[in-house]
Amino acid sequence: MFEARLVNSATFKKILDAIKDLLDQASFDCSESGIQLQAMDNSHVSLVSLNLKSDGFDKYRCDRSLTMGMNLASLSKVFRCSGSDDTVTIKAQDDADTVTFMFESKKQEKISDYEMKLMNLDQEHLGIPETEFSCIIKMPSAEFARIVRDLSQFGESIVISCTKEGVKFSTQGDIGTGNVKLAQTNNFDKEEESVIIDMQEPVSLTFACQYLNLFTKATPLSNQVTLSMCDNVPLVVEYQIPDLGHLCYYLAPKIEEDEN
Amino acid sequence: MFEARLVNSATFKKILDAIKDLLDQASFDCSESGIQLQAMDNSHVSLVSLNLKSDGFDKYRCDRSLTMGMNLASLSKVFRCSGSDDTVTIKAQDDADTVTFMFESKKQEKISDYEMKLMNLDQEHLGIPETEFSCIIKMPSAEFARIVRDLSQFGESIVISCTKEGVKFSTQGDIGTGNVKLAQTNNFDKEEESVIIDMQEPVSLTFACQYLNLFTKATPLSNQVTLSMCDNVPLVVEYQIPDLGHLCYYLAPKIEEDEN
Amino acid sequence: MFEARLVNSATFKKILDAIKDLLDQASFDCSESGIQLQAMDNSHVSLVSLNLKSDGFDKYRCDRSLTMGMNLASLSKVFRCSGSDDTVTIKAQDDADTVTFMFESKKQEKISDYEMKLMNLDQEHLGIPETEFSCIIKMPSAEFARIVRDLSQFGESIVISCTKEGVKFSTQGDIGTGNVKLAQTNNFDKEEESVIIDMQEPVSLTFACQYLNLFTKATPLSNQVTLSMCDNVPLVVEYQIPDLGHLCYYLAPKIEEDEN
Repeated sequence: MFEARLVNSATFKKILDAIKDLLDQASFDCSESGIQLQAMDNSHVSLVSLNLKSDGFDKYRCDRSLTMGMNLASLSKVFRCSGSDDTVTIKAQDDADTVTFMFESKKQEKISDYEMKLMNLDQEHLGIPETEFSCIIKMPSAEFARIVRDLSQFGESIVISCTKEGVKFSTQGDIGTGNVKLAQTNNFDKEEESVIIDMQEPVSLTFACQYLNLFTKATPLSNQVTLSMCDNVPLVVEYQIPDLGHLCYYLAPKIEEDEN
Repeated sequence: MFEARLVNSATFKKILDAIKDLLDQASFDCSESGIQLQAMDNSHVSLVSLNLKSDGFDKYRCDRSLTMGMNLASLSKVFRCSGSDDTVTIKAQDDADTVTFMFESKKQEKISDYEMKLMNLDQEHLGIPETEFSCIIKMPSAEFARIVRDLSQFGESIVISCTKEGVKFSTQGDIGTGNVKLAQTNNFDKEEESVIIDMQEPVSLTFACQYLNLFTKATPLSNQVTLSMCDNVPLVVEYQIPDLGHLCYYLAPKIEEDEN
Repeated sequence: MFEARLVNSATFKKILDAIKDLLDQASFDCSESGIQLQAMDNSHVSLVSLNLKSDGFDKYRCDRSLTMGMNLASLSKVFRCSGSDDTVTIKAQDDADTVTFMFESKKQEKISDYEMKLMNLDQEHLGIPETEFSCIIKMPSAEFARIVRDLSQFGESIVISCTKEGVKFSTQGDIGTGNVKLAQTNNFDKEEESVIIDMQEPVSLTFACQYLNLFTKATPLSNQVTLSMCDNVPLVVEYQIPDLGHLCYYLAPKIEEDEN
């Protein structure tokens, strides 16, 4: 028997919005410690890793580890039926081939349940090695989304360059070139508006706009995003999900002789 | 001479929005008692019945009964020209082949008039027999619209089941099944948020989502909607138009051996 | 060396939105006195004339007159990257083949620069003769936009008729006819809501809806618009850009025997 209850169903909706454009389907691995999802995107370029710890749920019970393969478009349809203040309860029997989502309104006068068929998906467990990063940039998630969107108008890739002073995002294309520079914040009054750089050595790497843009679908999950970079190692774009866990995206840098 | 004046032209705009996706054209029957419209939808499945009583208008004069056939897309274009605070006056001469709509702004500094050609439409007068219903459900119109929209994602038809305790809307499709249960409200503080059931005997009937969705275009007209159901009799979906009349939709239940 | 700085970059964004649907590309003529742009629209029917005086900029330097040919779609992309509170600085070297736009956020923690390639465009200098107009109508710009949009639903051209009492906009088409009458305002409390008519003699002219609609893209620039009319002379639709200059559109009247 698996049962997980989240008073704020909107959080789960935001998680789905953050991954459904990258993944058509995915396996949710449920165990005593929580729910995990790890998958390459549809075009096998980037990696999505979601971690929701059991403590973060309002009720959590997992008698036996189970893996639930789901079509994310269908799952999005189910969550589109939840009201913004609804509580969601996810339920599955051991060895069941369906999962049930129950939504309850605040005053309990409306109860909806949706039973969805599960899928058998090939499991691909991907080891993510621990890395020492050259630069770790913490910045407002909305600012990151804005910059990626703006520069994507001009070119197909973005160079992210980090020094002690700040971080620079650059692109070039037929129209011309664009650079956005963010200085490290001195004033830490509003932590969520800060740009904080933890640098071992300067780094400058090139990434495909297309994937960075897809990662920024997670912006509603968190005010801050963390970018971790190191030469020859995938960029990690991490969004904390308050009290519940985190969502990470991994993307290998482009190797381009003629750029930058 | 026919002349009808409504201080709140927005009400007429909402009525048009509620019927223009079901009807390409329609005959408005004007008499001393008011304006009536009765028509099968374009695909001849459901029936629309509109009743606006003369008392509800701010000024109303109808010397001789007349029938005005109008193209509803054209009529919508005319009403799109009215401001949200405008007064509308509808005028037609006896035996005229045009109708005039005059919009006046609050301060009278802007006056618009639109003259539209009338159409000769085949009249189909449909007798609607008085029925004793097994269940009459009064519920918030926005909730009904939301449920129909949500369940339409999964299947082509919705089963509405009513008992003394409450009403259940169900569907099933390729993805799985969905059920939404509303309990009868005990607390009658806010009448417009209440679910009130008047039941003679339990009933469970199946209806096509497509039409239910079109009926919910009337949601802006009223906070409440009334669903009247009885075996082998069309469902009546009724929206009261405050102080002016009502708009009813009729839809026969589906007869399906294999469902529910 | 050319350098022009505007604290409110949003004004420049609005100017671009007001001309980019009429012009694919345009030459900005920069001199000591300011920036000018004058061009026929893509279909060579109407004329756009923009005047920004150097005094209106927060900083302005133009050592040598220069003409910068730009693709307006590309320029719009650049300005889409500016925040609503950003300051913009436009810079170009003498004889340069690129122009640079620098956006600075209020707190200067974000600085973006975009370098765009310039184009060589054929220069067409068009003399606009000074005209004595029969009627000059000053009215709310949003009201003008609304009327043009509304009437465009019915016909391809709009007749603008002006007398001492007021101004009338009329159209006719397959559906029927439409007239909107605005009375001259007696109460001048709110100047921006006033309709003020300066008339030498009554005039009634016909114009193509399509172009009038494109001119109203300038509505966000100013609360008021001025329409200047005279027989056999192009209509002038003028939007003042507060403290900076003005944007004018010119459109010749239609000569139609059978209309009006």
